[in-house]
Amino acid sequence: MRICVINPNTSAAMTETIGRAARRVAAAGTEIVAQQPDAGPESIESHVDEAFAAVGVAELARRGELLGFDGYVLACFGDPGLLAARELAKGPVLGIAEAAFHAASMLAGRFSVVTTLARTVPIAEHLLHAYGLERRCVRVRAAEIPVLDLETPAAYARIAGECRRARDEDGIGALVLGCGGMAELAPELSRELGLPVVDGVTAAVKFVESLIALGLGTGKTGDGAYPPPKRYVGRFADWTTTAC
Amino acid sequence: MRICVINPNTSAAMTETIGRAARRVAAAGTEIVAQQPDAGPESIESHVDEAFAAVGVAELARRGELLGFDGYVLACFGDPGLLAARELAKGPVLGIAEAAFHAASMLAGRFSVVTTLARTVPIAEHLLHAYGLERRCVRVRAAEIPVLDLETPAAYARIAGECRRARDEDGIGALVLGCGGMAELAPELSRELGLPVVDGVTAAVKFVESLIALGLGTGKTGDGAYPPPKRYVGRFADWTTTAC
Amino acid sequence: MRICVINPNTSAAMTETIGRAARRVAAAGTEIVAQQPDAGPESIESHVDEAFAAVGVAELARRGELLGFDGYVLACFGDPGLLAARELAKGPVLGIAEAAFHAASMLAGRFSVVTTLARTVPIAEHLLHAYGLERRCVRVRAAEIPVLDLETPAAYARIAGECRRARDEDGIGALVLGCGGMAELAPELSRELGLPVVDGVTAAVKFVESLIALGLGTGKTGDGAYPPPKRYVGRFADWTTTAC
Amino acid sequence: MRICVINPNTSAAMTETIGRAARRVAAAGTEIVAQQPDAGPESIESHVDEAFAAVGVAELARRGELLGFDGYVLACFGDPGLLAARELAKGPVLGIAEAAFHAASMLAGRFSVVTTLARTVPIAEHLLHAYGLERRCVRVRAAEIPVLDLETPAAYARIAGECRRARDEDGIGALVLGCGGMAELAPELSRELGLPVVDGVTAAVKFVESLIALGLGTGKTGDGAYPPPKRYVGRFADWTTTAC
Amino acid sequence: MRICVINPNTSAAMTETIGRAARRVAAAGTEIVAQQPDAGPESIESHVDEAFAAVGVAELARRGELLGFDGYVLACFGDPGLLAARELAKGPVLGIAEAAFHAASMLAGRFSVVTTLARTVPIAEHLLHAYGLERRCVRVRAAEIPVLDLETPAAYARIAGECRRARDEDGIGALVLGCGGMAELAPELSRELGLPVVDGVTAAVKFVESLIALGLGTGKTGDGAYPPPKRYVGRFADWTTTAC
Amino acid sequence: MRICVINPNTSAAMTETIGRAARRVAAAGTEIVAQQPDAGPESIESHVDEAFAAVGVAELARRGELLGFDGYVLACFGDPGLLAARELAKGPVLGIAEAAFHAASMLAGRFSVVTTLARTVPIAEHLLHAYGLERRCVRVRAAEIPVLDLETPAAYARIAGECRRARDEDGIGALVLGCGGMAELAPELSRELGLPVVDGVTAAVKFVESLIALGLGTGKTGDGAYPPPKRYVGRFADWTTTAC
Repeated sequence: MRICVINPNTSAAMTETIGRAARRVAAAGTEIVAQQPDAGPESIESHVDEAFAAVGVAELARRGELLGFDGYVLACFGDPGLLAARELAKGPVLGIAEAAFHAASMLAGRFSVVTTLARTVPIAEHLLHAYGLERRCVRVRAAEIPVLDLETPAAYARIAGECRRARDEDGIGALVLGCGGMAELAPELSRELGLPVVDGVTAAVKFVESLIALGLGTGKTGDGAYPPPKRYVGRFADWTTTAC
Repeated sequence: MRICVINPNTSAAMTETIGRAARRVAAAGTEIVAQQPDAGPESIESHVDEAFAAVGVAELARRGELLGFDGYVLACFGDPGLLAARELAKGPVLGIAEAAFHAASMLAGRFSVVTTLARTVPIAEHLLHAYGLERRCVRVRAAEIPVLDLETPAAYARIAGECRRARDEDGIGALVLGCGGMAELAPELSRELGLPVVDGVTAAVKFVESLIALGLGTGKTGDGAYPPPKRYVGRFADWTTTAC
Repeated sequence: MRICVINPNTSAAMTETIGRAARRVAAAGTEIVAQQPDAGPESIESHVDEAFAAVGVAELARRGELLGFDGYVLACFGDPGLLAARELAKGPVLGIAEAAFHAASMLAGRFSVVTTLARTVPIAEHLLHAYGLERRCVRVRAAEIPVLDLETPAAYARIAGECRRARDEDGIGALVLGCGGMAELAPELSRELGLPVVDGVTAAVKFVESLIALGLGTGKTGDGAYPPPKRYVGRFADWTTTAC
Repeated sequence: MRICVINPNTSAAMTETIGRAARRVAAAGTEIVAQQPDAGPESIESHVDEAFAAVGVAELARRGELLGFDGYVLACFGDPGLLAARELAKGPVLGIAEAAFHAASMLAGRFSVVTTLARTVPIAEHLLHAYGLERRCVRVRAAEIPVLDLETPAAYARIAGECRRARDEDGIGALVLGCGGMAELAPELSRELGLPVVDGVTAAVKFVESLIALGLGTGKTGDGAYPPPKRYVGRFADWTTTAC
Repeated sequence: MRICVINPNTSAAMTETIGRAARRVAAAGTEIVAQQPDAGPESIESHVDEAFAAVGVAELARRGELLGFDGYVLACFGDPGLLAARELAKGPVLGIAEAAFHAASMLAGRFSVVTTLARTVPIAEHLLHAYGLERRCVRVRAAEIPVLDLETPAAYARIAGECRRARDEDGIGALVLGCGGMAELAPELSRELGLPVVDGVTAAVKFVESLIALGLGTGKTGDGAYPPPKRYVGRFADWTTTAC
Repeated sequence: MRICVINPNTSAAMTETIGRAARRVAAAGTEIVAQQPDAGPESIESHVDEAFAAVGVAELARRGELLGFDGYVLACFGDPGLLAARELAKGPVLGIAEAAFHAASMLAGRFSVVTTLARTVPIAEHLLHAYGLERRCVRVRAAEIPVLDLETPAAYARIAGECRRARDEDGIGALVLGCGGMAELAPELSRELGLPVVDGVTAAVKFVESLIALGLGTGKTGDGAYPPPKRYVGRFADWTTTAC
């Protein structure tokens, strides 16, 4: 099967990190294609960034359907464009926040999230609420690292420190890493902390593989139904569709 | 004061309807400027449409700040781009669904919503939940009219019929019209049905005027804080900002 | 238009403060009449005080209808008698807690409340819950000032201090002042703290003006319907009504 | 022990019905004193009625403390004045809606309520929510009988009919009768319907007896603390209290 | 009337403590029979312990029905086997956590719980949620005492200390003791702390007595209906039932 | 990897059905071992049945750990014994209701459940609530088929009929089959109904495989921690454990 892993920001380095993480866990028969939009923000740290990222996600999902992908992973922890991509796709589409929250809920009664900047905390809390899993999450914590500094030497120490505080103070059984750029840190943190640390990129890849293997795709009768035909104008005019 | 009323879709006819409704209720000293994006969908009936509309809203809000608007109304019932516009603006920003839900909550313990197509029902339900007012709403009902058919002769009858059913079956004290294109129907429906029928466009105009008069703008310390500086690439490169 | 601002307690000084605050923000064509009951507690700091205040509110609302007021503001943060007044009134009726919670929700994803005494905290929390906005409020804080000491020199410093702690610790974008007697402090606190500080009296005046301008009054088909005819006895016998 | 059963309305006939029901279930050593206010509505069917009834309840509770009652039952299904009475009393105070909801929750996972008029449905729903038991209640149903017609021959048939529909349609294990005036119907309805039918008056008497026997009274450190000293004016001036 | 008090663990000493507490509060005409399973854990501190305890509870409830008990109390704070016992019993069945949460809700707007070990905190929180009373509870606190050490001299001091912290920090009006083995400590703690301290064993006894006196038993039409006939095999084969 | 699929009832035919369904979707390298308890009910249709099934599940999980299984699936839709099994296991443990709810949440904003008998409806509703996914489920429907009749010719027609009504009336995008015995019907129903129909057995197998592949097991610091050492007596004495 072929899974399209969409990095909603335009940082090629992060697309590479994410693609590598995805391929590390993909099954033997799974082809991972990691992509990023042509246009948009280099990292996603505000609602404005999310608005532009969502358009990039929609464009990659539309192109992905032409290329026949079996499923999609949206690799930004705010899950921007998730509902739009789901409308466009026949197969399953998972955001990494969504996948991570579901995975952590399967491993423990209660979990916490460690994210990048404090200003992304309400975004994560809003998603928990939208997915209905807010009661499972004790606390969303910020390690106060800008997304693009995640690869710096100091970053791991700060993230590990916040994770340790979460484990010791929050009464939790699992942790979620709140950024696609942290994808490769999960195994080491799990070992070091002695509790399951969930990364959303790898969780989403396995769950999308699972749904495809089960023959299950996005429901097309509810809010994931294909968009009705519509005239678009201006630089988005190529999104115009007509009834078949 | 000057209020920018943004029609998130690209239908000039609807921008005119919305602007007219806004001006009808604006205070003597209020200047209403009704605008629409250069690019995007002609009407908004899916999550894909919302994704593109949000970019249009962000662009009009950014330009609006340069032009010194005191506040903004986003005149599509899905409130697309609301959080992005709030990050960009100094003054208050209200979506019409948000404004209508708040207004109806001030008039009655319970209200219902009459919207256009069944597929927009979950969008309205999601907004009710995000704003925390879901317990005040008894039911979101669809009149099954495409947005662009709202001006047709048959539309009023169907909307009035669904409103009547809501009044008779839902045990409510107020009704909300679930589309910016219905802005001018509220007074007549109120008279005909004998209960307050809230249109979000006019409600939002008055509430934004109120907040401006109170000297209150969008909070800049929480999730409405200005976006951090960011490099954007491709056709959105003009959104690149640098720290002052 | 004529708006009746009811101070539910019997302190003439507070009625004056509240009336002054209301007139400061009222539109040119709005006449503000500030009133207080003939009988009842001098300030409202318990459920017992609220019970007597509610009767005073009902009596002023009944008299107000005879005088033809277009709308009402109930200027005590526990919103005592709100539902009774709504049953009696044709126009809109807003409590100041209700108005302040709605206003803060329009300005920020999350807000906190600073009230007078710790024992009024559960009253505010109960109202947040009843209005459905409890998820928007991070914390209700007490500055530990009795209502009637609000005008003393020390009071401003304590309130400002608690507001500052709320801003620094609660991750909020807006603040609500939890007492009608704090009505005149909001503008200075907003400036000093750098985030919008909402006072319910002024917010309620503008929202009631807005609803009247929109032609919207209390819904008379739901739980705001006029009370059924009823025989009252004893000193409340003048409340006896008969079917028309 | 001595329990004061307060009928919050001023119908002597209903006070008698309620007192009789209370005495039927009271333990051997329990003295039941059934009382009603001197002033107020003859039956309680609106928020206005509730406001006046709450003052009557407060006055009877204050007098009751002087007379040394061990506990109180408030025998109107809207529980008017409950929080005020709790502040005044040393012993336990239970409203009959509250008692009935707790009792039904002990007998079944889910219950329904059959009340008098449709306009009291939102009052019952609000109480369910305030007490936190809304998820246990499937539906609040109205038999459409005015409170003062409860003793008419037709009333029993209508109530029984609505109870039967609740049993057959709601998937419930217990029923709650939503009016103090229905107190004597519960045993017969239980037999006829084959499921436990809870009357709040009798449930409240037994629960108040239980709490007294356990040596438990209203908590005086939280929101049931004695009211702070306060000056009252006008016809309520006798409520003025001073610090000891 | 005859009430069966089931200690779900197999510690005879704790059965005695519980029985003694139950008899201390039982009415003159109530016979208390305290029992424990033949098999299972000596104390209940994990979900595994609860699973085995539930089978013991079911067996005692089945035998209890043959012996004609009028009602049951399950005296372990995790309420293991409650729903199974309710299916088997004609009369009322109350768990002590359930009874204590209801009692505390009748005495105060908000309460806290003091339990034994931190690992039982999520069990109590889950029960609060299942019963719908989670909003009434401010916090579940652990005194960090293993169940079987409850009788040691140091235990009372630790429990009293945690209760004092709850009273001083949680803004509560009542406390709940989170273990059947604490049954005899409540009166002394109430006196010492100056707020009502609820023990579930004694509360459950009085509430079961109340329900029996009211003629109310477990609803047999909902989720407490008698189990359908079923073939059981192996060592549980004696649970096989056939349709009558 | 080796996954133990536990059928919590004692019907060998159902164990076979479940094992076959599991093996149909298992990855190439996955060994599925389907097991059932030695003792307990032949099918699970009541809380009593669940209590005995939970003991069987615990015993198979304990034995499974000795045999070195990498993860577990509990194949009864009430998820009996889930928390106990999770305490005992190092690897992931998923109930089929839990797995199905998570899968359906990934495919659609809203789903419905079709289960066997009406009396199991509250069990499913309770699980939805416990997992926090109750807002995602529109309705739990009963096809009114006893578990052991699932293989009869009429059963498929009734289930398909109820599924069709769910699709046409509930506004959903996905369906969940509410019984392990329906495991093999999902693919055909998906095809016939035109929306994804989720079977919990196959979903749980894929999700457990996923978690194992990600190196994630049950969190051992929270409520899934290993049970503390404990003395058991009677026929469960072999569950006695001592501290290492």
